[in-house]
Amino acid sequence: MIKVGIVGGTGYTGVELLRLLAVHPKVEVTLITSRAEAGKCVTELFPTLRGHYDDLYFSEPESHALGACDLVFFATPHGVAQAMMKEVLAAGVRAIDLSADFRIRDIEVWEKWYGQQHGCPELVAQAVYGLPEIHREQIKDAQLVACPGCYPTSIQLGFYPLLANDLIDPRSLIASSASGVSGAGKQAKVDLLMAEMGESFKTYAAGGHRHLPEIEQGLRDMQTPDAAEPELTFVPHLLPMIRGIHSTLFARLIENVDLQALFEDFYANEPFVDVLPQGVLPETRSVKSSNICRLAVLEPQSRGTVVVASVIDNLTKGASGQGIQNMNIMFGFDETMGLAAPALLP
Amino acid sequence: MIKVGIVGGTGYTGVELLRLLAVHPKVEVTLITSRAEAGKCVTELFPTLRGHYDDLYFSEPESHALGACDLVFFATPHGVAQAMMKEVLAAGVRAIDLSADFRIRDIEVWEKWYGQQHGCPELVAQAVYGLPEIHREQIKDAQLVACPGCYPTSIQLGFYPLLANDLIDPRSLIASSASGVSGAGKQAKVDLLMAEMGESFKTYAAGGHRHLPEIEQGLRDMQTPDAAEPELTFVPHLLPMIRGIHSTLFARLIENVDLQALFEDFYANEPFVDVLPQGVLPETRSVKSSNICRLAVLEPQSRGTVVVASVIDNLTKGASGQGIQNMNIMFGFDETMGLAAPALLP
Amino acid sequence: MIKVGIVGGTGYTGVELLRLLAVHPKVEVTLITSRAEAGKCVTELFPTLRGHYDDLYFSEPESHALGACDLVFFATPHGVAQAMMKEVLAAGVRAIDLSADFRIRDIEVWEKWYGQQHGCPELVAQAVYGLPEIHREQIKDAQLVACPGCYPTSIQLGFYPLLANDLIDPRSLIASSASGVSGAGKQAKVDLLMAEMGESFKTYAAGGHRHLPEIEQGLRDMQTPDAAEPELTFVPHLLPMIRGIHSTLFARLIENVDLQALFEDFYANEPFVDVLPQGVLPETRSVKSSNICRLAVLEPQSRGTVVVASVIDNLTKGASGQGIQNMNIMFGFDETMGLAAPALLP
Amino acid sequence: MIKVGIVGGTGYTGVELLRLLAVHPKVEVTLITSRAEAGKCVTELFPTLRGHYDDLYFSEPESHALGACDLVFFATPHGVAQAMMKEVLAAGVRAIDLSADFRIRDIEVWEKWYGQQHGCPELVAQAVYGLPEIHREQIKDAQLVACPGCYPTSIQLGFYPLLANDLIDPRSLIASSASGVSGAGKQAKVDLLMAEMGESFKTYAAGGHRHLPEIEQGLRDMQTPDAAEPELTFVPHLLPMIRGIHSTLFARLIENVDLQALFEDFYANEPFVDVLPQGVLPETRSVKSSNICRLAVLEPQSRGTVVVASVIDNLTKGASGQGIQNMNIMFGFDETMGLAAPALLP
Repeated sequence: MIKVGIVGGTGYTGVELLRLLAVHPKVEVTLITSRAEAGKCVTELFPTLRGHYDDLYFSEPESHALGACDLVFFATPHGVAQAMMKEVLAAGVRAIDLSADFRIRDIEVWEKWYGQQHGCPELVAQAVYGLPEIHREQIKDAQLVACPGCYPTSIQLGFYPLLANDLIDPRSLIASSASGVSGAGKQAKVDLLMAEMGESFKTYAAGGHRHLPEIEQGLRDMQTPDAAEPELTFVPHLLPMIRGIHSTLFARLIENVDLQALFEDFYANEPFVDVLPQGVLPETRSVKSSNICRLAVLEPQSRGTVVVASVIDNLTKGASGQGIQNMNIMFGFDETMGLAAPALLP
Repeated sequence: MIKVGIVGGTGYTGVELLRLLAVHPKVEVTLITSRAEAGKCVTELFPTLRGHYDDLYFSEPESHALGACDLVFFATPHGVAQAMMKEVLAAGVRAIDLSADFRIRDIEVWEKWYGQQHGCPELVAQAVYGLPEIHREQIKDAQLVACPGCYPTSIQLGFYPLLANDLIDPRSLIASSASGVSGAGKQAKVDLLMAEMGESFKTYAAGGHRHLPEIEQGLRDMQTPDAAEPELTFVPHLLPMIRGIHSTLFARLIENVDLQALFEDFYANEPFVDVLPQGVLPETRSVKSSNICRLAVLEPQSRGTVVVASVIDNLTKGASGQGIQNMNIMFGFDETMGLAAPALLP
Repeated sequence: MIKVGIVGGTGYTGVELLRLLAVHPKVEVTLITSRAEAGKCVTELFPTLRGHYDDLYFSEPESHALGACDLVFFATPHGVAQAMMKEVLAAGVRAIDLSADFRIRDIEVWEKWYGQQHGCPELVAQAVYGLPEIHREQIKDAQLVACPGCYPTSIQLGFYPLLANDLIDPRSLIASSASGVSGAGKQAKVDLLMAEMGESFKTYAAGGHRHLPEIEQGLRDMQTPDAAEPELTFVPHLLPMIRGIHSTLFARLIENVDLQALFEDFYANEPFVDVLPQGVLPETRSVKSSNICRLAVLEPQSRGTVVVASVIDNLTKGASGQGIQNMNIMFGFDETMGLAAPALLP
Repeated sequence: MIKVGIVGGTGYTGVELLRLLAVHPKVEVTLITSRAEAGKCVTELFPTLRGHYDDLYFSEPESHALGACDLVFFATPHGVAQAMMKEVLAAGVRAIDLSADFRIRDIEVWEKWYGQQHGCPELVAQAVYGLPEIHREQIKDAQLVACPGCYPTSIQLGFYPLLANDLIDPRSLIASSASGVSGAGKQAKVDLLMAEMGESFKTYAAGGHRHLPEIEQGLRDMQTPDAAEPELTFVPHLLPMIRGIHSTLFARLIENVDLQALFEDFYANEPFVDVLPQGVLPETRSVKSSNICRLAVLEPQSRGTVVVASVIDNLTKGASGQGIQNMNIMFGFDETMGLAAPALLP
């Protein structure tokens, strides 16, 4: 049993961690922090957890308590992990940051897109980007894992077999993605009200979403050394539903291959990537509550444009589930431990 | 490990059984039948189950195969279990029927409400009504368990502490219930289309729903011997959402008690009934995907009318989860085995 | 053409007024106020109105501008109309208040339920309660109309034929109502997020909702002089949808009548109350965007409990549409003017 | 007043015609046909229309009755209008076909994509494609108008300014579109159930949707004579909501222009195309129930890929509203007559 702490556990990634860890056989959640809810029982804020965490109370984030953990998850808005990470790591604790604080290696790029100074640039280089399908080996020994964003996970896993094999023009990349509203977090904003979001669909941040530089950095990592820099046109949309991300990817093929066989082979040994049979297209509900990414690939009308459809649950494989997958790798547990339950249907 | 067969596994209660049994440590699903889908892999119909039942194929319902099971679930429309039950029980197999076939003890009443002749009246008397909170002892040794309906579960658990203690006028009972659309099953009907059901709310069957006689029989079983026959006005509604039932119950109090304490004490030892703290009202999402029933009780304006709010997931505690709870009791497993995961939120 | 001003037009009742008045042949909206949005064009806040109000800008609420109107609507939270009403009426302007400020005649009751001192008690007595089906004659000459709340409209219209004819026990009244989320207004609250409200159903304020005293006052007004005081148990619920209220009403019958004929006769001449044919139950979508209230009445199992199902669009007949109906009556226009378009389906 | 008949009025485009025509000042609906519902009052099938069409009954489609109309709408599945059109036109009646029967000029292409023989090839050449923004002049005198599909309308209006001005590479066109479920029609299919469609998002027909050849024919019509044939990769998706289509369009720019000014100028005089101000992105709800198409155009990161976001209500501008717009043009009415009401919000 390892002792796990959660910093900032009042949001949707926090409660998703709690849901999944409640039945993880190797984990005890010993600490959860929240300045706003300090003193309140976890089950008071989240009645779904009654019977599971009846003795767990939100506390102020104090360093000695964090230091007693084997692992700390940061389920916080960006900026928070930067401020606390040095102390946590110095105490010998390992950390998985679900926020954007340590995902981007170029500090200037981070500062430009997030509009603030980076609070801990000296640790960025040692952070491992926690997409296990690409960086599994480094994750094993990492002290600090920067867990990918939800859009980036769905998009990178879709382009990976194509870019790694130099099959598409890297300057032709398009991602038309759509997210359920839980992706926007638990913020008291008029724009996120059900009366505003329900029964409607729209693009947002089409001129430039913060996940763009993270995705392009990740795509670069997949390419062969001589490939041209990837250029992605990324248009996110908001769906009138709660959980799930669907990314529809487009690129110009520069070589003719059996795409279905390529994808199936490429991901044959990945426990959390499922290439659907030819002709089957993924729906977001097929991964609801699960850590799976399901993919389909096709070339409509054989006109040289490849289309990939990729679905994940934004809170699971897109955040907390992937965080636990990283934890399993870091602590030598079976990678699927605690993540084996099938998706909820209907 | 017990060998479990599922008859009629293509509907929503079927896939819910499969979802829950996939991670049950004592169960192997060895057989699943469907005339319509015979020969097809379970994961072809339900992509959510890819990786879990890749070798399980729908088969024709043949008796020798059923006879090799330790337990058979019927996840069928009413009428099917009646036709097959005699043979199944004769083979020494135990059975849990999720349909309405063996719930009502009075054959005439059953035939009136279901509009057809009962196909197996001789087995009705030996069927145990599978509401563990009331009939746990008989369930242990039952060969045939008739699992309660979804509305009946939510309503009976709400009225139970009041009727068992003779605290309300049994002729004043009202249940205003509301169900998500999965309760109507996976039927190709125009009325159930998203374009018809979405963004709307309505009563249906207000003049008489088939669950009424089942509920009234159950309420009768709770009463003290001299109490008057219960009379329930039951108005069901359809909600523009997928999972969940909410029952709002009303009755005239005939005695003044501490309702909160009564409910808390009454259900103190029940693993799947959760009485919420005073002032907290249940929401259906607080039990989504879980086998819990959450309850609140209050007397608005102290005017002598008690109100109980009761929520369950109609497919879990309202059907397949309760079926597995019954199975656990019948086979001597821990009653919560395979049913411990917290509800999905958000 | 009359000149209409709207105070507080940034919320849902405000934009509903604008939508309906855009095609009203006798009205010009000359003024709309909002402290928060002063200076902004109406179409910037509400792109749905582009092409209709391109020259209308939010302004600070100044008295001389309001004084130039023939009629002012208050589409404000409670408390605002109280502060401004004296000045508006003194300028000879007529007013329709969509808020709760002038609905309750007993000042003490108002102050108890709204938790603040009433800001203008001297005008309460002259306010006419704007439920045209009951108070049409007084509305004609009223200077100040207090438009009913959404729940109160749906509940009063359902009980009216029964109470006016002394057919039910006034101490047995129950209303189990359910509202779409737009009823909660356009407030930046976590509880109202789509990720919190979607796919869930719950009661709220079951111990006492502010609409209760308004409803009971209205029910009292319908009764015959010697009838006992009405006592209503009112349990509101929140629906995972945007528009619409459904009230399911229960009462003990004290006389046996043809309920269907009673309701049809009672409302035969009402343009905005539609009694559905026997056996047809209303759905909220059947009135979406329209000013109609649709009703069904039945006595399940002939056991002496009458059930009424009543639906309205909470923003139309439950607020702004009813406000315009009142305006039509006050200014001698055809009562249905501007309100004739059928409901939106699907 | 013209006499209008509707063939096949039981589906969603049928009831949308009835909703809009109910308040059209120049139209009387004198006939509505349905084999399945013949003899039934329109308001029995559609309670939303009670009070509007109380004397209109579905009838068998007989030619003499159709011959008494000035205009007949076909709101039927493909194949029906082909079978009846010759007789209708021969009677001197004008016709607007909302189905796909007369949209595609190349009979072979139609037969390939619709998988059946064309029933009336001799009339295809005289049919005018009813996209008023392109073919307004021909529509005026047309006897037969083939009303565009929903996806085609949203996509063509988005690409029109770009293709007409030779600004994009016609072989680089991508449309990632998403439709509410009403687009799939009122068919009793399991796939369209709320329990299947709710809370999920998916692509479908990504390998080839029937609207593709219609769109490409329309795009061809917009191009300058020497332009290369357009090639569109069209991926439609299904949204968990009822009404609305959103098309996100991508293309490679071949010339550098002020896109915002281009779009604003291009559509300056179109009553039903609204180019949003720079920086504002459209949401589908902004056109719910209205005949407007709202557009935004941008070039993310100035990398040479133009993005257009285009929204319509699939049942209004995408079907019945556009049909009425065509009718207005054909009969010399003001083009916006009966179509002026603002969109419904929220």
